[in-house]
Amino acid sequence: MDRKIAGLAKQWEEQTILRRRDIHKHAEAGWTEFRTAALVVKALKAAGYDVSFGADALEEGSMMGVPHKDVLAAHMKRAVAQGADPEVVARMEGGKTAVVGVMRFAKPGPVVALRFDMDCNDVPESADPHHRPVKEGFASINPNCMHACGHDAHTAVGLGVAEILAALKDELAGTVKLIFQPAEEGTRGAKSIVAKGFVDDVDFMLGAHVGADRVGHITYNVTNFLATSKFDAEFIGVPAHAGASPEVGKNALLAAASAALNIQAIPRHSQGVSRVNVGLLNAGTGRNVIPGNAVLKVETRGQTTPIADFVKTAAFRILRGAAQMYDIDVVITEAGGAASGINSPELAARLQAIGDRLGIFDEVAGVYPINGSEDFTYYMERVQQNGKQAAFLMYGAATTAANHNSAFEIDEACMVKALQMLASCAAELLTKPVK
Amino acid sequence: MDRKIAGLAKQWEEQTILRRRDIHKHAEAGWTEFRTAALVVKALKAAGYDVSFGADALEEGSMMGVPHKDVLAAHMKRAVAQGADPEVVARMEGGKTAVVGVMRFAKPGPVVALRFDMDCNDVPESADPHHRPVKEGFASINPNCMHACGHDAHTAVGLGVAEILAALKDELAGTVKLIFQPAEEGTRGAKSIVAKGFVDDVDFMLGAHVGADRVGHITYNVTNFLATSKFDAEFIGVPAHAGASPEVGKNALLAAASAALNIQAIPRHSQGVSRVNVGLLNAGTGRNVIPGNAVLKVETRGQTTPIADFVKTAAFRILRGAAQMYDIDVVITEAGGAASGINSPELAARLQAIGDRLGIFDEVAGVYPINGSEDFTYYMERVQQNGKQAAFLMYGAATTAANHNSAFEIDEACMVKALQMLASCAAELLTKPVK
Amino acid sequence: MDRKIAGLAKQWEEQTILRRRDIHKHAEAGWTEFRTAALVVKALKAAGYDVSFGADALEEGSMMGVPHKDVLAAHMKRAVAQGADPEVVARMEGGKTAVVGVMRFAKPGPVVALRFDMDCNDVPESADPHHRPVKEGFASINPNCMHACGHDAHTAVGLGVAEILAALKDELAGTVKLIFQPAEEGTRGAKSIVAKGFVDDVDFMLGAHVGADRVGHITYNVTNFLATSKFDAEFIGVPAHAGASPEVGKNALLAAASAALNIQAIPRHSQGVSRVNVGLLNAGTGRNVIPGNAVLKVETRGQTTPIADFVKTAAFRILRGAAQMYDIDVVITEAGGAASGINSPELAARLQAIGDRLGIFDEVAGVYPINGSEDFTYYMERVQQNGKQAAFLMYGAATTAANHNSAFEIDEACMVKALQMLASCAAELLTKPVK
Amino acid sequence: MDRKIAGLAKQWEEQTILRRRDIHKHAEAGWTEFRTAALVVKALKAAGYDVSFGADALEEGSMMGVPHKDVLAAHMKRAVAQGADPEVVARMEGGKTAVVGVMRFAKPGPVVALRFDMDCNDVPESADPHHRPVKEGFASINPNCMHACGHDAHTAVGLGVAEILAALKDELAGTVKLIFQPAEEGTRGAKSIVAKGFVDDVDFMLGAHVGADRVGHITYNVTNFLATSKFDAEFIGVPAHAGASPEVGKNALLAAASAALNIQAIPRHSQGVSRVNVGLLNAGTGRNVIPGNAVLKVETRGQTTPIADFVKTAAFRILRGAAQMYDIDVVITEAGGAASGINSPELAARLQAIGDRLGIFDEVAGVYPINGSEDFTYYMERVQQNGKQAAFLMYGAATTAANHNSAFEIDEACMVKALQMLASCAAELLTKPVK
Repeated sequence: MDRKIAGLAKQWEEQTILRRRDIHKHAEAGWTEFRTAALVVKALKAAGYDVSFGADALEEGSMMGVPHKDVLAAHMKRAVAQGADPEVVARMEGGKTAVVGVMRFAKPGPVVALRFDMDCNDVPESADPHHRPVKEGFASINPNCMHACGHDAHTAVGLGVAEILAALKDELAGTVKLIFQPAEEGTRGAKSIVAKGFVDDVDFMLGAHVGADRVGHITYNVTNFLATSKFDAEFIGVPAHAGASPEVGKNALLAAASAALNIQAIPRHSQGVSRVNVGLLNAGTGRNVIPGNAVLKVETRGQTTPIADFVKTAAFRILRGAAQMYDIDVVITEAGGAASGINSPELAARLQAIGDRLGIFDEVAGVYPINGSEDFTYYMERVQQNGKQAAFLMYGAATTAANHNSAFEIDEACMVKALQMLASCAAELLTKPVK
Repeated sequence: MDRKIAGLAKQWEEQTILRRRDIHKHAEAGWTEFRTAALVVKALKAAGYDVSFGADALEEGSMMGVPHKDVLAAHMKRAVAQGADPEVVARMEGGKTAVVGVMRFAKPGPVVALRFDMDCNDVPESADPHHRPVKEGFASINPNCMHACGHDAHTAVGLGVAEILAALKDELAGTVKLIFQPAEEGTRGAKSIVAKGFVDDVDFMLGAHVGADRVGHITYNVTNFLATSKFDAEFIGVPAHAGASPEVGKNALLAAASAALNIQAIPRHSQGVSRVNVGLLNAGTGRNVIPGNAVLKVETRGQTTPIADFVKTAAFRILRGAAQMYDIDVVITEAGGAASGINSPELAARLQAIGDRLGIFDEVAGVYPINGSEDFTYYMERVQQNGKQAAFLMYGAATTAANHNSAFEIDEACMVKALQMLASCAAELLTKPVK
Repeated sequence: MDRKIAGLAKQWEEQTILRRRDIHKHAEAGWTEFRTAALVVKALKAAGYDVSFGADALEEGSMMGVPHKDVLAAHMKRAVAQGADPEVVARMEGGKTAVVGVMRFAKPGPVVALRFDMDCNDVPESADPHHRPVKEGFASINPNCMHACGHDAHTAVGLGVAEILAALKDELAGTVKLIFQPAEEGTRGAKSIVAKGFVDDVDFMLGAHVGADRVGHITYNVTNFLATSKFDAEFIGVPAHAGASPEVGKNALLAAASAALNIQAIPRHSQGVSRVNVGLLNAGTGRNVIPGNAVLKVETRGQTTPIADFVKTAAFRILRGAAQMYDIDVVITEAGGAASGINSPELAARLQAIGDRLGIFDEVAGVYPINGSEDFTYYMERVQQNGKQAAFLMYGAATTAANHNSAFEIDEACMVKALQMLASCAAELLTKPVK
Repeated sequence: MDRKIAGLAKQWEEQTILRRRDIHKHAEAGWTEFRTAALVVKALKAAGYDVSFGADALEEGSMMGVPHKDVLAAHMKRAVAQGADPEVVARMEGGKTAVVGVMRFAKPGPVVALRFDMDCNDVPESADPHHRPVKEGFASINPNCMHACGHDAHTAVGLGVAEILAALKDELAGTVKLIFQPAEEGTRGAKSIVAKGFVDDVDFMLGAHVGADRVGHITYNVTNFLATSKFDAEFIGVPAHAGASPEVGKNALLAAASAALNIQAIPRHSQGVSRVNVGLLNAGTGRNVIPGNAVLKVETRGQTTPIADFVKTAAFRILRGAAQMYDIDVVITEAGGAASGINSPELAARLQAIGDRLGIFDEVAGVYPINGSEDFTYYMERVQQNGKQAAFLMYGAATTAANHNSAFEIDEACMVKALQMLASCAAELLTKPVK
């Protein structure tokens, strides 16, 4: 089986690179991945998968940080203009760009799920002639949209894995679920797919991300995913003339200022690292008007989910208390979130054994604290709570700049290794759930 | 009638001075006027009045700023030790030291009420040998208790008025109510007597206060009583070790600090003068403990009752919002209050005509803005709301120092004038309600 | 003389209306009155005045709230495109649009100055077909620029006064100074003209403004100009990643929030009305970045200049203290200001005598508290400090909407009265400085 | 040598217990250890040490958190009344209760220092008849003074070590310094002894503390001493009548409230644990007075000294900024402090080898994170900065209650082990500095 998969991966490499470049050129940000998702739908169907997308692939009430409907509408048009199937795009109205492909194999077996994220960053791509996407003609044509975190490669690899597993379907058992997720940036998308129940029956859950290390490097023991919560608060007060009738106003600026100070004063937590930031405060309209409106953007983090929840709960309470102080309303909108998490050790060990056997990685990192947030943790949390296993890999891609930087580019040689590795892992877990 | 009253006043002058000195020597602060009130009860009964006191003279739920029961108990003992009737004192348990004497005359007529306040200040009396009470042996023997605002004279005058009116009872009509009020300092006492309904049927309400001007000066047009509210807020949080488990604490100090800042930021009012002050904040126990407790003392004022209410309502809301911010409780206790007010112009004119006729005041002030608070306004407000009339006089007493100062003393010659004036006004209003 | 002036005013009426409509149509906001000022320069020169403008007419360092140079450049171009003399406009670079016309008469006499303001409001003009400027074709063609406070009429009247006085020059004495001021809105312009010394030698200073009352109404006793100060504060901190290195950031948002709360908590003033407002606070860039920048817009007012200065000084101190708290810089830029003020009573009486004599006003108001700010007070303050006299008139113009409202329009019949009144006053003060 | 020391320790055990009980009975809090220190002076001199005490044993300017001089005077009297040598006590005026005994041995060798702390806690001792000190008659007779952290045992052990080393003086080399330190509670005393230079020439620095584990337990790898800083801030404003002249006041309460909020908002540090607490805020005098005074008690901690310094520096800046905001003064007084620290690994290993060899400890703990503050770290820091070694031991004493609890008591059997261990370590380090 290993050998077959190695051959198939090699065979799909060029196609994977072409797909990645096509996605890169038509980069789409969170919840607007209409063209990308339509392309995924088409390829999964072609490969024989049962495909859910649009309202069938996510729970609308759990979508976080969705852009304004005018923005969505404009991007739907853009996707169609750039070649997406209009019917498929239409069914993704409201930003419902998630796609899940499921294949049930003839033999009984476990459920194995893999997650691939599809969205780009809100960053203009470098126009430097030495920047490879520029030099080779696949730089993003969508303004302020750039794949500067490798999700283009993740999606292309995901489709290749889909095709390899489909090619092997007679030899496989159980069920494979391939989740193509929108809006990982800002940790906004995973929650809505988990809420739809897609991973409730999953036995093994895999995720992967390109990394800064050279091609050939791999990490099995990813730790320290920080739990996070991102939310906006809008205070709605009453403006009034500051000179003529100050007592008539209900001051949203002071409510927001008071909230900001008290949120920053949320205590440290003795059980681990916590963070809190009010990153933005905009209030008021003019110098001589009691400010009737204010907006705050807040982010909290915690080393564990309970720590993050402690900070988030305190912040919500402070926002509501500040509104009460000024007799005004506050509307809190969740704009993103992720849990804390750690790779299931048995699964990490299993994956390492597979990687070692394949011989395509020559450098294995030890414990790798990510110290950042990833909404893959929502899948991980659900699966682990069900007593099953989840793990997240990072594979070296020799990235040329920091994540989210305009000059970011990967070494595409990493993709064939990822194809082979992920397909091999899925195949083995499907066929030998118990080692 | 004028002449008769002039004679009676002259006759009672010495007794009034002696009484005033006795009360001065045994000065008692708000809600602890046990000895003073017992003395009033005795004199009013002797003069033939129906006397209500203790729970019969006030509404317990509206008593504000009452001292701790241990303090009350100690002062009850002191009063008895200083000669008060133990049975009378016992009926004033809980600080219920109000006394109301009512006399219904044979002929039908209006209801006329006069209010006299009885409490002293929390001030040690000057020990200067030139200070008259020291020189003449009637300085206060009660530590930190001193009549430094003339309420001793008010009470003595009130008893004299009671006796003069009793002496004239066959010539009078209607009903007279003589209200001897506790706890005017801090504006804590009037509300409880008004709440008991004593002035609901009053047609004419009179009050009076000694002033700084020379004896012979009088003011009929008192304005600008500031509405005020005094209250304490106690935040009850949860202490915790600041190093070991800061997240367990619920920080009452920060709630209080936040409340203080936001209370001070309550906006100005375009309809008139407002004031707000957090005069005291005590929070926390030790350096390394998250503070679990905090107390604030707040005072608000307004040129009108609605302005004062605006500030008070905002302050209450802020206190509650601050408690919500920190997930703690706040207990707000009203510690005093007064309404705004202005003399009824018809009654002021009537009084001025009487004063002019008596010829005992040789200097009449014009409009006299008091720019302070007096809880006589609660009676005034109730009476004027009922369409009846109320007025407050200030008569010169050549005071030797500012109110509430340890060196305060009055010229006792003011008292005979007050006796004559108040008795004459009451007699005329009772017998000629319509001029 | 009265009769001559009445005739000249009548004669100039039509021209004044045409000028006012031309200025209205080409409305220009504060410091961008390039076309208006060029028109004034031309007319004053034609009438024989010595004309100062550009850098000669104001002190650059005292100009407040000047727009960005790109805005100025664009408006200079627009002015030229709309017919302004390019050479004159060029000399007003940087927004130096003040114009002062001086005429020294042959006979010795006092110095009389009149001030006319030229700027429009940042308001789009109503497109209602019933709005007279629309109906009669002189609505503003400059977007978001509209004379909604009558300064177009003031300027046109000023030019008419200039021409009338020039026509009478052989009969006049002393010196007349006609000050055409930019940027009265936001009280930004007067200070720079006063600082240039133009009113240091003035004996009588006059200003005037259209009012809401019917034509024929006039006010001589204008009081309660509120002193005001308008300023911006920019906090310059250091941004940092809120998750990775919060301790590296220097938080400008928290400095601004803390400043806003404490500014709002500046105490009331016992000597009169005060106001303070933080009307705008914008801070931060993104949710996960420690905010490195913040801007506040603040306005303070006071019933007297010392009260306003008290509030302003406290606010500046708080802004600097907040910056110190967070180890950051704060740059405070004054954006406007006005003094308190009151008409010189002798001059008000003199003007009233003239108005009465002319018989063109049939309704004279008593004391008229303006309860707002006007930077005419800077001239007033300087002149009165020199022991000389200043006064501000308000004459009825039957305005159709509140000042600064898109539907504002005046009854142009007010202008001939203003022409006659102001020219008569100037003529009499020049020739009979002592009544 | 080991055997000799074991014998001497056994021999001194009873005396050590008696001394400990005498010190326990006459418990003295930080900077008032007059009797205890006098007893130490006497014993060290008797054993042949050169003894420095009073101003010779510490740097006055670095003493932190010294009680008021009236308190010191009262406690000097108490010490004399309880048997202390009056002359010795007199030389400790001002709380200078440090004592350092030095013995230079004939043979050349290293400098070895041991530190013993002498102060008790501000805690009333339990009166429970089952509490051993009560039962056996050595409970503290000094009110609110109790050895509830074992410093009585430390001091008694220190004297025993002194005597054992003196007995062995012919066999030892180099120099031994025995530091008896005041005011370890609140981490107030060490700094002043370090500042005097006593450990500048030290090659090996030892400290030890009783622990909660059973007798026989020992810890060689103590880590995570938290750096700390304790300080008080006093804001000195200007009181004023809140109703009559609020603008005259300079509000210390609001400055303190603002400081407290902003201090609590000092950011987390990415390099490790930090803590900050405003544990106490007392401000104002009365409800109707603008508060002219305020006091804050603050404590900061950090996993490393730079982290603690970051928080402390930020807090100082905030206090000063808050004072500037309100145009008032702030006086900051340091009340305690400690550095972070970690045992020198070579020395820890050396001590463990000695302990193993002696065979008196049967349970050796691994890494032992203390997660608290100890001012032994000041000695440690200085010695390690000089390239030399320092270590702190914790030896089981089966304590009966938490440190600082009224029911705290030790198992005195721990003392003979400590005597033997510390004397053996000192002897070996003096004679075999290099292993």
